[in-house]
Amino acid sequence: MSENTAKGWQGNFFEDFELGQTIACPTPRRVGEGETAAYIGLTGDRTPRFCNEDRVLHPLMLFHTSFGQTVRQISLNARANLGYADWVWRRPVRTATVLHTNMEIIGLKENSSGKTGVVYVKNRARDVGGELVCEYTRWVMIKKRGSAPTRWASDPVVPELPSVVDTSRLRVDRSDLPKAAHTGGQYYFEDYVPGERVVHHDGQTVNPSDHMAFTRLFQNSAKIHFDAQLTEGKPLVYGGFPMSVGYAQAYNGFENRLGLAAVNGGVHANPVYAGDTLYSMTVVDSVDPLGAAPAGAVRCKLYVFKNFNPATDPDIALRDEKGKLIPSVALELDFWELITKRAAI
Amino acid sequence: MSENTAKGWQGNFFEDFELGQTIACPTPRRVGEGETAAYIGLTGDRTPRFCNEDRVLHPLMLFHTSFGQTVRQISLNARANLGYADWVWRRPVRTATVLHTNMEIIGLKENSSGKTGVVYVKNRARDVGGELVCEYTRWVMIKKRGSAPTRWASDPVVPELPSVVDTSRLRVDRSDLPKAAHTGGQYYFEDYVPGERVVHHDGQTVNPSDHMAFTRLFQNSAKIHFDAQLTEGKPLVYGGFPMSVGYAQAYNGFENRLGLAAVNGGVHANPVYAGDTLYSMTVVDSVDPLGAAPAGAVRCKLYVFKNFNPATDPDIALRDEKGKLIPSVALELDFWELITKRAAI
Amino acid sequence: MSENTAKGWQGNFFEDFELGQTIACPTPRRVGEGETAAYIGLTGDRTPRFCNEDRVLHPLMLFHTSFGQTVRQISLNARANLGYADWVWRRPVRTATVLHTNMEIIGLKENSSGKTGVVYVKNRARDVGGELVCEYTRWVMIKKRGSAPTRWASDPVVPELPSVVDTSRLRVDRSDLPKAAHTGGQYYFEDYVPGERVVHHDGQTVNPSDHMAFTRLFQNSAKIHFDAQLTEGKPLVYGGFPMSVGYAQAYNGFENRLGLAAVNGGVHANPVYAGDTLYSMTVVDSVDPLGAAPAGAVRCKLYVFKNFNPATDPDIALRDEKGKLIPSVALELDFWELITKRAAI
Repeated sequence: MSENTAKGWQGNFFEDFELGQTIACPTPRRVGEGETAAYIGLTGDRTPRFCNEDRVLHPLMLFHTSFGQTVRQISLNARANLGYADWVWRRPVRTATVLHTNMEIIGLKENSSGKTGVVYVKNRARDVGGELVCEYTRWVMIKKRGSAPTRWASDPVVPELPSVVDTSRLRVDRSDLPKAAHTGGQYYFEDYVPGERVVHHDGQTVNPSDHMAFTRLFQNSAKIHFDAQLTEGKPLVYGGFPMSVGYAQAYNGFENRLGLAAVNGGVHANPVYAGDTLYSMTVVDSVDPLGAAPAGAVRCKLYVFKNFNPATDPDIALRDEKGKLIPSVALELDFWELITKRAAI
Repeated sequence: MSENTAKGWQGNFFEDFELGQTIACPTPRRVGEGETAAYIGLTGDRTPRFCNEDRVLHPLMLFHTSFGQTVRQISLNARANLGYADWVWRRPVRTATVLHTNMEIIGLKENSSGKTGVVYVKNRARDVGGELVCEYTRWVMIKKRGSAPTRWASDPVVPELPSVVDTSRLRVDRSDLPKAAHTGGQYYFEDYVPGERVVHHDGQTVNPSDHMAFTRLFQNSAKIHFDAQLTEGKPLVYGGFPMSVGYAQAYNGFENRLGLAAVNGGVHANPVYAGDTLYSMTVVDSVDPLGAAPAGAVRCKLYVFKNFNPATDPDIALRDEKGKLIPSVALELDFWELITKRAAI
Repeated sequence: MSENTAKGWQGNFFEDFELGQTIACPTPRRVGEGETAAYIGLTGDRTPRFCNEDRVLHPLMLFHTSFGQTVRQISLNARANLGYADWVWRRPVRTATVLHTNMEIIGLKENSSGKTGVVYVKNRARDVGGELVCEYTRWVMIKKRGSAPTRWASDPVVPELPSVVDTSRLRVDRSDLPKAAHTGGQYYFEDYVPGERVVHHDGQTVNPSDHMAFTRLFQNSAKIHFDAQLTEGKPLVYGGFPMSVGYAQAYNGFENRLGLAAVNGGVHANPVYAGDTLYSMTVVDSVDPLGAAPAGAVRCKLYVFKNFNPATDPDIALRDEKGKLIPSVALELDFWELITKRAAI
């Protein structure tokens, strides 16, 4: 390519990151009722707090907005989103604000292939007043620019990350509780039992415009999601789309939820493409009453399936003999959901 | 299915309804300028009052919002939407409000098959201050849970419903009139003649994302509209979509309209699927000057066709010899439209 | 068609326009944050000023809104959009306003075929307070109603139009500058060199719902964009869609832009259909420092390609031997972009 075309940004490579570096992510983004309407139109989410008088912005909408802001720096040459940890929403955000995200490099490890490395980033999204709204760590496999080994091959830095967010970090206020008459739900915190599987009974076929509009809405510019010519006719669905669709489906069975408060981890196990139909099921992992709080925390593992309806076999083994998630699982999302206590109604 | 998956709601059956029961429908919904932008993007509606300084929320948008709220209670096990009656918008709503809907069971009749019954519901949508915004009666055929006959087999209760909304219930205020310069229309109330057919000249091909986004926007969660696997590749288009597209098309020829004020009845005569192209035509049934009001009421029968452009044969017989609507009619909507009087300009 | 169906408007023909006539375009349109969310969801635009605290409405969104308002009068019987000139945004518009557009007929010329003529219109879009927001001239080939020659065959009036908007008309204020930390861009006004080609590196495949929702959002009712039955399965993509997608892609390489200030001309060189993948490249034509202003003007020629990624051959000849744009160019848009000066940071 001729030199005079060099201004178009093509993304960082593994060698471009420095340990301890903090990068301000471009394009602060206003989120408000326009985005909420678009989000509902794309996901069908019905959680009362996020569409009623409370006017709380959907936590996943805030996350996707922030995630999209990081794409230009971290994702353009990414090979894979390897994981998430220590992801916490710090406060409810009411319409409207402007999110600003920065990204701190907290770990670097070159892979043995010499062609890629893993970058660990801690992202922080702040509102227009500078208050922390959401923070999350993720790690991404990124291409190297060259073949020369970096110091992170022999001397990798891998941060210690919690396998579960400590529930002492979750905050819940009486004013956060949805009214029972608004939710339509008959189940409360006390009703959820570890090991229980809740099938959500809705199926959603992914259309090309659905996932692309969702991804554009959050200004995620990774071209693999949009360019059918680049992808042999099969643009990859942004992993955040099944996350939001699955969470929207999970209203059915978790009607008295306040919304996810923290994510312990997540795995994009298998790719989703337009034409796939998404279904979901939640496995209740454990519960924490959060002391005397009016809502308790339920640790949920949300499984979003493609082209498999768990209602047909809710006891299905989710992992194979080697512990690998089965091919029909698109996403496993391990998070703390807050749910009103019956005692607090 | 194992017991522990029972929390996912699968809908009411015929036996679950009681005469006189009133059900608060979950998920109150804020509607405002975000939803208006989405609505215009999905339908192309150009009616001035609903997109200009007046900031009146589109009556059909309010209806679909309320309808979506009832789906969880009434539609998940529905076999068919049989009809509408006594459907009135009570006041213009200006951006923004939160709609709350409740549903009163006013009739129950078991069908002779013993497998289904008809539930008559009166729905009322109120704004955040509790003022009645829209009320409508509809009746739905719903599956029975079991085979044992109910008392509604031998002793059905079928409400008496008006075949037409009395025009004394329609209210129009001088401040509701659109300015002629804003509408582009040359026809006024006095120009509409009973028997007249107005062809609207626009065609709209339905894409999968169009109808699904529309249906999700209104949090209508009936899975038949979204799940291609469940429906052998042909999700059924929500009947509200051709209603809104047809009404948007009907701007052409009714430019000086204030918006529909009441619906006398409606028939979803034939199903619509993605790929169908929608066209529409209005038959003027009758007119009522509403005394000295600045607008008069025109009783319109809006016919939304699939894959047939009425411009090619505007005199087509809309019903066959047996009185059944022809296969190309997707929807017949019988409503009172308010139109500025020439005398009031 | 029977007489009683005549109310549906079918558009003006060449004979219907009079020189000097000014037409108020129907359907004033409120534009605000709902439309902004929809616009971002459809285009992926990331320009900071148009999505952050500044809350400036996207200039192209304002243009499309106004353009849509003119369709009913000028486009329904149009054969081709021949060109644009003298197109200037007069001031930044902050959320929200209502746009009103009128259209002045400034030129008429019947074509030698006797079947069509060219209508030159000057459009002016004003905000709700009557302040001029955007003005643009375009000329359109329109069908004649009849075969009788008009006076514009022998005595055509063709307005003199500037080939480039004089930069003295461009206004820039210090408060208009995006913060460098918000843009992610490393290039400033001083870095752009005439003759330079900037490849934008993003590809966007057009889905049917994408372009139709975009066109409906702006209430553009030209049926050729929506009706697959009319168009043998290939509705024509509204020319404004590749314009907005290309401009969104051009963020990459022009991150410190303030937004387009004026358009010198534009050519819809080749049609776009659903399934096409859009890429873009900008050729820097010339620069003007606008004296001591904190931003300078870069004259850009934006080329939006279909199914050709200019990154694979950035030096491609854009015109053939006869000076015609090559078949893979969908749009050439010649405009003045304002870009922060390095000296002003």
